[in-house]
Amino acid sequence: MDLEELCKNAHEARIKVGMLDTDVKNRVLEDAADALLAGEDEILAANALDVENGRAHQMPESLVDRLSLNHERLEGMADGLRQIAGLDDPVGEVLSMKKRPNGLIIGKRRVPIGVIGMIFEARPNVTSDAFGLCFKTGNCVILKGGSDAIHSNIAIVKALKTALVKNDVTGDALNLIEATDRETTTRFMKMNRYVDLLIPRGGRGLIQSVVEQATIPVIETGTGNCHIYVDQAADLAMAVNIIRNAKTQRIGVCNACESIVVHEAVAAEFLPMLYDALKESNVEMRTDETAQECLGGGRPLVVPAKEEDWGTEYLDYILSVKTVKDIEEAIAHINRYSTSHSDAIITKDYDRAQKFLNEVDSACVYVNASTRFSDGNEFGFGAEIGISTQKLHARGPMGLEALTSYKYIIYGNGQVRK
Amino acid sequence: MDLEELCKNAHEARIKVGMLDTDVKNRVLEDAADALLAGEDEILAANALDVENGRAHQMPESLVDRLSLNHERLEGMADGLRQIAGLDDPVGEVLSMKKRPNGLIIGKRRVPIGVIGMIFEARPNVTSDAFGLCFKTGNCVILKGGSDAIHSNIAIVKALKTALVKNDVTGDALNLIEATDRETTTRFMKMNRYVDLLIPRGGRGLIQSVVEQATIPVIETGTGNCHIYVDQAADLAMAVNIIRNAKTQRIGVCNACESIVVHEAVAAEFLPMLYDALKESNVEMRTDETAQECLGGGRPLVVPAKEEDWGTEYLDYILSVKTVKDIEEAIAHINRYSTSHSDAIITKDYDRAQKFLNEVDSACVYVNASTRFSDGNEFGFGAEIGISTQKLHARGPMGLEALTSYKYIIYGNGQVRK
Repeated sequence: MDLEELCKNAHEARIKVGMLDTDVKNRVLEDAADALLAGEDEILAANALDVENGRAHQMPESLVDRLSLNHERLEGMADGLRQIAGLDDPVGEVLSMKKRPNGLIIGKRRVPIGVIGMIFEARPNVTSDAFGLCFKTGNCVILKGGSDAIHSNIAIVKALKTALVKNDVTGDALNLIEATDRETTTRFMKMNRYVDLLIPRGGRGLIQSVVEQATIPVIETGTGNCHIYVDQAADLAMAVNIIRNAKTQRIGVCNACESIVVHEAVAAEFLPMLYDALKESNVEMRTDETAQECLGGGRPLVVPAKEEDWGTEYLDYILSVKTVKDIEEAIAHINRYSTSHSDAIITKDYDRAQKFLNEVDSACVYVNASTRFSDGNEFGFGAEIGISTQKLHARGPMGLEALTSYKYIIYGNGQVRK
Repeated sequence: MDLEELCKNAHEARIKVGMLDTDVKNRVLEDAADALLAGEDEILAANALDVENGRAHQMPESLVDRLSLNHERLEGMADGLRQIAGLDDPVGEVLSMKKRPNGLIIGKRRVPIGVIGMIFEARPNVTSDAFGLCFKTGNCVILKGGSDAIHSNIAIVKALKTALVKNDVTGDALNLIEATDRETTTRFMKMNRYVDLLIPRGGRGLIQSVVEQATIPVIETGTGNCHIYVDQAADLAMAVNIIRNAKTQRIGVCNACESIVVHEAVAAEFLPMLYDALKESNVEMRTDETAQECLGGGRPLVVPAKEEDWGTEYLDYILSVKTVKDIEEAIAHINRYSTSHSDAIITKDYDRAQKFLNEVDSACVYVNASTRFSDGNEFGFGAEIGISTQKLHARGPMGLEALTSYKYIIYGNGQVRK
């Protein structure tokens, strides 16, 4: 189908999809979970083709791993859909309703956004996740996955669509752009006449390209250069434990810690403790001069930091280490280099904890906890479509509510304006 | 000053401005109101120069009127600032705070957006309004006004800035881009590194150009092709009264009615009644064939509608008139041609009132009231920065809350992720 026609059809279907009762939406999600498992042979065969093509084109093993599906992963996708079916439906909630002096009753009602576009890379599980979250919130979704996963995505969407058919719901609720050329992607980003929101999920390059080219409103997600600041009044054992967790518990994720900032007064005591804890995981420490002095010479895994280290999201067993003379310098450093995702302070001092919470301009600001908690499930949302690093519409982990808008409904009895 | 430097300075000042206490912000706003009046001679002289230039370049009288300042208008601007000082400060409100099973306490706190850019045309009052609303919500603002009002804007900003100086607040809270060439405007729209939100205020051309070129997130405002649907169960006298109000009470505004949709069953009775009411104001009716038949031939001010009439925001004494055979056709017509601003149904029928509220995809949907109420003051917000016609972040009239974002603040005592 032509791209514009596909977008237009989704746009026209948005009213009907937005009005579906929660019961119907939940039945579709349960049936879609069943359909994924019923379609296992076909989906895994398609996925094997993608993996084979990837290997033939020298795809790195870490990407092959993200791309690969098997029975367990497909069950995980199905479970994800069932979990979304179990969540409360936010659509229709009246957020406020007030009577004005002239008798008008003005209500603010939560409604679907309409048509949501997702542009993502070679992670086929995003296909069912995005459908589940968008459909539960009454939105039509248009998916543009990476070319590396195209066979997998076609097979998954085919299975999911059977659940729409079975429940007499329009197939325009779920759309996959099958063309994988760059020109189609660029045209898609400019379909603001039909698409209300674009969420890119992937690396920084993808997100930047969408921000620069799209005329559809975009929510930026995902890049996380997360900092932990060790204050002079920190419990140092707690600081070691939290940084070890935030750095090494899972390295390839956006809420992993990439940089620590340490107050000079505790650096000499703290950094050797941290070094001992991190060397078990072979974490390389890229340090400024003061930190290097605190660690003494000749240690393996300690190298001087360069300017570009402060702004780098490694997603690897590497940590940059910066020392500061006070909290003002720490906050200024973090506000300069952070991607405004998640940053933490470790301290027992009340005033500095408050100051850090107030002045660090990030989506999630922590006192005495690991940045790894920045996640829709950990925040209690039950699901997550991504983590917004911008300030408009949604910030931080985005659950179902982030996929809704609102409208004003006004009940009158003949009022006119004076 | 160089544009990039100006944007960067505002970006760096955002933390301090965002932390100002409400008392300080209110004192600045009161002092700014005084400063406008104290600077009256200088401001009116600058404005006279703009008006003279406008006239010399054949500016239409309606635009000259919007551009012109006098003592009363300056007092209106000062009153506007005082009114904003009197509103509650939304910044700092904790929207929710919950304890998670692992003991983490996660709060959602309302914070300023950061740096807000406004691009607007030749209405110098927007300069003080935008400053007042953005400053009250702890944001730094960067103003890019029309070249036609540049002398007025420079004089107004100079006066407003004295209030910042007097209260020891950084001048970077309020910035005016003095260059008026198109290239500067285009560069400004791409300063997404420093500017968090761009609000264009003006005609459709300006807004489209911003949507197409900006990399900064944009909120579209203002264009309103508003409809009123007269159902077969309408109180026809009420319908006449509401349409007369919505069409003629003030014609050049975005919430004025531009098009009516009438059920066939009442068109023959209703349209002559409406005609009689509107002819007092010389309203031209551009009608489809059925409506024309209902009105009979030979009436002055009745002309056939063309296809482009359905999508036109006249901002004039013109009304398009469409007849439909049922509410489904009415809703489909409205969802196709409306700018999603404000649309109304006039009916006594419960089911159709509900259906209209549910299915018309606009920011403000009315039953039995004039669309002219779509306004921040009428909605009880106390002020308004514009009316959003998009679905992200803010929809409909935008008060102070629309100029805020939120951040998550997380209190832990050593939690790490399992």
